[in-house]
Amino acid sequence: MAERYPGGMHGAIASGITELLGESVAVTVATQDQPEHGLTEEVLDATDVLTWWGHATHASVDDAVVERVHLRVLGGMGLLVLHSAHFSKIFRRLMGTTCSLAWRNSGDTELVWSVNPSHPITAGIPQPVVINEHEMYGEFFDIPAPDELIFISAFSSGEVFRSGCCWQRGKGKVFYFSPGDQEYPVYHHPDIRRVLANAVLWARPEHRADFIAPAVINQPAPQFNRGDITEGVGA
Amino acid sequence: MAERYPGGMHGAIASGITELLGESVAVTVATQDQPEHGLTEEVLDATDVLTWWGHATHASVDDAVVERVHLRVLGGMGLLVLHSAHFSKIFRRLMGTTCSLAWRNSGDTELVWSVNPSHPITAGIPQPVVINEHEMYGEFFDIPAPDELIFISAFSSGEVFRSGCCWQRGKGKVFYFSPGDQEYPVYHHPDIRRVLANAVLWARPEHRADFIAPAVINQPAPQFNRGDITEGVGA
Amino acid sequence: MAERYPGGMHGAIASGITELLGESVAVTVATQDQPEHGLTEEVLDATDVLTWWGHATHASVDDAVVERVHLRVLGGMGLLVLHSAHFSKIFRRLMGTTCSLAWRNSGDTELVWSVNPSHPITAGIPQPVVINEHEMYGEFFDIPAPDELIFISAFSSGEVFRSGCCWQRGKGKVFYFSPGDQEYPVYHHPDIRRVLANAVLWARPEHRADFIAPAVINQPAPQFNRGDITEGVGA
Amino acid sequence: MAERYPGGMHGAIASGITELLGESVAVTVATQDQPEHGLTEEVLDATDVLTWWGHATHASVDDAVVERVHLRVLGGMGLLVLHSAHFSKIFRRLMGTTCSLAWRNSGDTELVWSVNPSHPITAGIPQPVVINEHEMYGEFFDIPAPDELIFISAFSSGEVFRSGCCWQRGKGKVFYFSPGDQEYPVYHHPDIRRVLANAVLWARPEHRADFIAPAVINQPAPQFNRGDITEGVGA
Repeated sequence: MAERYPGGMHGAIASGITELLGESVAVTVATQDQPEHGLTEEVLDATDVLTWWGHATHASVDDAVVERVHLRVLGGMGLLVLHSAHFSKIFRRLMGTTCSLAWRNSGDTELVWSVNPSHPITAGIPQPVVINEHEMYGEFFDIPAPDELIFISAFSSGEVFRSGCCWQRGKGKVFYFSPGDQEYPVYHHPDIRRVLANAVLWARPEHRADFIAPAVINQPAPQFNRGDITEGVGA
Repeated sequence: MAERYPGGMHGAIASGITELLGESVAVTVATQDQPEHGLTEEVLDATDVLTWWGHATHASVDDAVVERVHLRVLGGMGLLVLHSAHFSKIFRRLMGTTCSLAWRNSGDTELVWSVNPSHPITAGIPQPVVINEHEMYGEFFDIPAPDELIFISAFSSGEVFRSGCCWQRGKGKVFYFSPGDQEYPVYHHPDIRRVLANAVLWARPEHRADFIAPAVINQPAPQFNRGDITEGVGA
Repeated sequence: MAERYPGGMHGAIASGITELLGESVAVTVATQDQPEHGLTEEVLDATDVLTWWGHATHASVDDAVVERVHLRVLGGMGLLVLHSAHFSKIFRRLMGTTCSLAWRNSGDTELVWSVNPSHPITAGIPQPVVINEHEMYGEFFDIPAPDELIFISAFSSGEVFRSGCCWQRGKGKVFYFSPGDQEYPVYHHPDIRRVLANAVLWARPEHRADFIAPAVINQPAPQFNRGDITEGVGA
Repeated sequence: MAERYPGGMHGAIASGITELLGESVAVTVATQDQPEHGLTEEVLDATDVLTWWGHATHASVDDAVVERVHLRVLGGMGLLVLHSAHFSKIFRRLMGTTCSLAWRNSGDTELVWSVNPSHPITAGIPQPVVINEHEMYGEFFDIPAPDELIFISAFSSGEVFRSGCCWQRGKGKVFYFSPGDQEYPVYHHPDIRRVLANAVLWARPEHRADFIAPAVINQPAPQFNRGDITEGVGA
């Protein structure tokens, strides 16, 4: 992996987004070995879209940080969940399911097909994207039915996988994208980089986002009083 | 085709359903060359679930019969749309899209994967179903996003297809299932026959179905009168 | 109506969009009494988003024009379907259902509640929008389950209605919005005008739209040949 | 509450189900003050559908029990989440959102409208159900978009609420139904009892359910080997 990704997985992901979105975005990185995994309140307060790649050490991620990221997503921050992060605490918490799947690492070819050709995430993406060698992820993928299904992958070994899925949770947008194993140069692939850049743009919060998760409201005034309208409760 | 399906496509479909559901169902057949394509008012009045297979001659199907079937589905009759019937008038009318797809007939192997293992249509179905040779149907399949996605097919040639899809329209249930080309013995395949039988059971109308399509109601009485409840409008 | 809407319904709708979106849009109008209802090939070729309001005379709309608009929507043009246009030919064709509903015109108050506070269509919209008097539209509304449900209305008379619904059909986006009866000054209401303007922006096609409806593809080359990748088929 | 529900909330819920489903079901009750809240491994092993009502003391529910119920639902057990249990740990874990809402307890009239007249949960239910007095629950309700929206409530005070919602999570079915406050005799209302009984039948697992949550599979054999099929992996 050090040869393939000398700047780390995070470095390759960041460089692709920077390359394609340029100065319209400010990209920073956070890694698990940093204090609070680099995801302090200050950092999250400055983050519109978070990408999350993780592998093998999900269990050692601090629950307090997961809680913080969770609330930020529900408040409007976009989240891109990448490859083996299907088993991350944050993804499982947002989905409510096991997020388990079938897998095999035998260097099969993966073809990524769009089933939503007018979706912003598929802009400029060939049909299909060809990944010469990759880890196989297959069905059954235990996720809630996506709000929007974007990509389905075929493997030369015969399996299929819902490889690009969108959900809304609270005020935030979540995109799961499966290509991205550390043993293959997937994040140097121009089409994969394009998908990530498109997804960052798609997942941006509305400019009016306050990043406050929805909360219970004890609504004092009825809207109608014996059929007459009272003052509007307002936005 | 005559050798492979001596009883016609309809004969093979009917025999599979009869074989698996036995006396719990009464199976009859209707063919395009019959008067009103065999789908008279009387026949439809006695039909809970209709299977529709068609190929090449969709354009010559009588619009009045399509209208009749359409209203019956909206009123609660189940509909199974099979293989090349993706281009039938009735399916296109129910979907509102072109229902176009990519295809190639080169005898590729098709694997049918379930993405919904607890759905009644997948009961008793292996993961995956293996069809040794079949026509390829691939994405992009121009359909409304299914209410429930059940099967995704992989082809040995690399394509994928949403091969089993459920929708509700009006009071009726619609299932599209792509395996079933006339040049291959697909309808003799025990797993495919099982899917059809399961889908017939799934698509049955609720016992309370009146088979009357939803209609506009000029609702005379308000529910509230200055905040006081009036008589309930009832079911 | 002439007093309330001296410029016609189309005039009021157009003026609201112009007022809020200014020079970022070019608004033109087409009316049913024009040749081809004003929706010639040339006009549609220049249209990114079409708003459709109609009442009572749906049946006299030319089927050829409906077909033309239908294909344009499937090719990427956005469509806003307003109020009584739930019974328009174009909406029924896109939905595949009867689009029937319950109604009563007795000047009830309508409150329009958002159930999707981070959706672009709800930007700047108070919770709820208060319409002092309006025609009642109630459930059951016979539509396919919306891809996104945006607004639910309550009436002072006690009924509810899914008053703001989004669907994707082909490459195009469709938004149905029920406020807008000709007997009430609904289209002069600033919040309603804001919803229409937001929806126009939301329904815009992706800049890459070619406005060509999806079509069948006889895909010549397999993606894999005995496990080896062949030439990519490309976008 | 003791006067209104002398047998407790659980007693009223149980009696309604027993009354309507009779000997086809075996109903038992578990309460929070029991060891393990009455939801031991043995009890859950014998449970096809669990109803969950809770109020105010959600925080004191044992996380280990929640985890056990969660896995059982993902394995196929049906779950009915009732009224203030929108804030229960189990519902929030399954949904992944805050599940917050607007509320006010001022004895408003609630009308429960069906938006899915052919769904099994609405069988025999009048349109609308009239609840003379109830606590108001209003939007925005912070839940994932339901897989199926069944009921929308209107309140005489003007609010609306998505009061009946279905989701699938893993192999299990989840139904949220909001009527059921302890200060009102809602669970003695015949229509509400009918909804609960219908929902129990709807949420039953498929007879093939093994109640084992989906798990990761390291799939050893490819399906294809250079284009030739290998041995089927089977179900």
